[in-house]
Amino acid sequence: MKEITIIGAGLTGLLLGILLGRRGYSVQIYERNKDPKHTFAKLGKSINLTLCKRGVNALKKAGLEDEVQKLWVPVYGRCLHLSGSQIEIQPYGNYGEALYSISRQELNALLLSAAQKTSGVSVVFGLKCIGYDLSRSTISLIDEHQHRTELPFVTLIGADGSYSAIRSQMQRGFGFNYSQFYSKHVNKELTIPTENAKACKLKQNYIHIWPRNEFMIIAFPNRDGSFTCTLQLPAGDNNISFKNLNTESEMLYHFRKLFPDAIVLMPKLIEEFFQNPEIPMMTIRCSPWYIEDKILLIGDAAHGIWPSYGQGANAGFEDCEILSKCMEQYPDNMLASFIEFQDKRKANLDTIADLSENHFNEIRHLVTDPNFLLRKKIERKMNLLFPSEYFSLYSRVAFTTIPYKQAVDLEPFYDRIIDELLKSQEIILDPYSDESEKLIYKTYKRYSTKNLCL
Amino acid sequence: MKEITIIGAGLTGLLLGILLGRRGYSVQIYERNKDPKHTFAKLGKSINLTLCKRGVNALKKAGLEDEVQKLWVPVYGRCLHLSGSQIEIQPYGNYGEALYSISRQELNALLLSAAQKTSGVSVVFGLKCIGYDLSRSTISLIDEHQHRTELPFVTLIGADGSYSAIRSQMQRGFGFNYSQFYSKHVNKELTIPTENAKACKLKQNYIHIWPRNEFMIIAFPNRDGSFTCTLQLPAGDNNISFKNLNTESEMLYHFRKLFPDAIVLMPKLIEEFFQNPEIPMMTIRCSPWYIEDKILLIGDAAHGIWPSYGQGANAGFEDCEILSKCMEQYPDNMLASFIEFQDKRKANLDTIADLSENHFNEIRHLVTDPNFLLRKKIERKMNLLFPSEYFSLYSRVAFTTIPYKQAVDLEPFYDRIIDELLKSQEIILDPYSDESEKLIYKTYKRYSTKNLCL
Repeated sequence: MKEITIIGAGLTGLLLGILLGRRGYSVQIYERNKDPKHTFAKLGKSINLTLCKRGVNALKKAGLEDEVQKLWVPVYGRCLHLSGSQIEIQPYGNYGEALYSISRQELNALLLSAAQKTSGVSVVFGLKCIGYDLSRSTISLIDEHQHRTELPFVTLIGADGSYSAIRSQMQRGFGFNYSQFYSKHVNKELTIPTENAKACKLKQNYIHIWPRNEFMIIAFPNRDGSFTCTLQLPAGDNNISFKNLNTESEMLYHFRKLFPDAIVLMPKLIEEFFQNPEIPMMTIRCSPWYIEDKILLIGDAAHGIWPSYGQGANAGFEDCEILSKCMEQYPDNMLASFIEFQDKRKANLDTIADLSENHFNEIRHLVTDPNFLLRKKIERKMNLLFPSEYFSLYSRVAFTTIPYKQAVDLEPFYDRIIDELLKSQEIILDPYSDESEKLIYKTYKRYSTKNLCL
Repeated sequence: MKEITIIGAGLTGLLLGILLGRRGYSVQIYERNKDPKHTFAKLGKSINLTLCKRGVNALKKAGLEDEVQKLWVPVYGRCLHLSGSQIEIQPYGNYGEALYSISRQELNALLLSAAQKTSGVSVVFGLKCIGYDLSRSTISLIDEHQHRTELPFVTLIGADGSYSAIRSQMQRGFGFNYSQFYSKHVNKELTIPTENAKACKLKQNYIHIWPRNEFMIIAFPNRDGSFTCTLQLPAGDNNISFKNLNTESEMLYHFRKLFPDAIVLMPKLIEEFFQNPEIPMMTIRCSPWYIEDKILLIGDAAHGIWPSYGQGANAGFEDCEILSKCMEQYPDNMLASFIEFQDKRKANLDTIADLSENHFNEIRHLVTDPNFLLRKKIERKMNLLFPSEYFSLYSRVAFTTIPYKQAVDLEPFYDRIIDELLKSQEIILDPYSDESEKLIYKTYKRYSTKNLCL
């Protein structure tokens, strides 16, 4: 029976354990936190967890689709709260396309329970992996009393997240390319209780966004009618930042100026603002993801991305599905499956990393920009006219399983069509008029028959 | 008396110590190696140490110009050994411009002796810095017996090289952007003894290059008539590499095929090839270089670059000169001097890092490319016609002190002139003809009066 050792019982480690267990592997998962509940309940870790088709597909492979559905709230678009209390709804698609807002804690608990029920899979809590010895094929684990254990491994998979201990050690070896890149903003978790959301009639099946340039609040719905929010604010001392606001009255003064309509939703604002930590956003890129046929990185350990596109967990789940397939393809050659896995994933993950950085600025600045909104309208119309052919970039990423790189590589082609359309006054005046529709149809057809190969 | 603690008694740490000592600071330098000789004699560390105007200028500021001159060998250009034993001389400039080939060991010893003679500067060997405590302003040092000491610091400067311990700890903090990027080639040190160099009449005042695409030998002259060589070869198992050659006869077979004219110069080839380590090349980029007014990175610790442009030590020396000026500019505000230092240096070091990566490929492939050589001839002619105005990119980097970024930013402008010139058949036929000279003069004048602002 082939043995796999996984470090980390987060979302990716657990799903990979389940998928490999179901394929007949013997899987040992080690998690540093002693109590499973601590793993799930880290402050601020709930930020931005939305599942999309990619993640859901991978969960299907583990037979968890029905169970996970019970935990999520579908969201059908963005509800923008502009300054002056004006509200604008931006649906994600023309056909009820949805993301699925879910509590990280509940999803993690579901996966743990499923892993523990999977034959051949065991999860051990309270042992922190602090390193490996490649020549002896052992890992070092310490418990809460700093007692150290050496255990042998055959295949070691680091699913230990953005601050991976396995990757830290790989980084010290020759030939390991690595980068970490922080955003100039940090996140702080705030909450909108059910009663406030109801009193203010906050639509439940939407992600609510208060964009204020350098500051932004994003609210994700929970099943109980409450919302979990992220306040994004500039990091560092050189910016005008809430960081420099030390007193409650100073903080409230600025908050009221920026978010007068959000403040009424958050009765615990002061307490949460001063108590909750500032969570940085970090992109991690590295290569190679493996050492020989022995060690592989997966999920955030291999490729941390900013949460702005909501793809972190989805990308990790997709990793699990694809690695599992690669291991099926090369059942007796672990190195070949690692190489195949990196070949399939690396360029795609680099792409979504870039996209998440860019999208972060897009959300903050562009959601209220007239030119950007006009382009979105044309895209929406193109999708209505060519529903099985054309999807916007956001849709390709969030609502299909087209590899990330391919999804992005198509964009310049569509940009040319839209640039062409924007030469028409009619389109600028009203992209939804009959005349505009005809023009969009003709232009798209002309371009797509010439060039497009989907 | 203001106190400065420097980690690392390498080239940068020592020169900075001297410059600050001369400005009245009290400087403590800690070096991990116990015996100074060990610091200087690391295998393979001698690769590519050539001083240019930037480095020499900084050494002048320390009053070391006369002493250092006694140690170096001027090199006036490249001597290419092409396949088929054909030899081509490429002078660096039209006016005897030279780089200065110098032994890292001797240069380091000179700096150590100068530092020890500088009032207020002390150098302690055999204490390795393993980290700092920011809140307590202390560093942890261990000696060879693993005995640990905590010492207070006021201002801590990490001059501890590409594998900096100070930077490693900074990397774990929030907001520290970092990347390490390895070349796909490694270096191995080989030697040409004086008698072989003499017997084969190897010109002493040139850098000798045997370019063979994926493989290359570069030989630097020493004062005793010997040469220290770098063999560049592909790293990793996927390439046709000497790495896979395990027996002497296999190695010699391939070496004879690639370098039949170099093999006679190296009587210790087999021994050196199998004993000397493979030295990787790594670019390090990070930011910010400082924490508050307390800690600063300098030299390779802040910005490791590939040795291909020969700028590593020069950039480190330039750092010392510029930091020393920044500290003079803000005598009572260390943070302001750190910020000013990073503002002045970061973009320039990013530029030379990119350039060193690109130049690595240029040397290997382009030095024998006819188009590349034709462009070089036009550049040479432009410099002859406009000697105080026009310098090639290589000359701007190696023979001026124009900031690296500015040196590179000028290139597209000159490229346009050369592109324009290459439309002429006469130029292609003979860039040195009278007619070509007139054309070059006219074209350069036309462009430069319109656009150029040096």
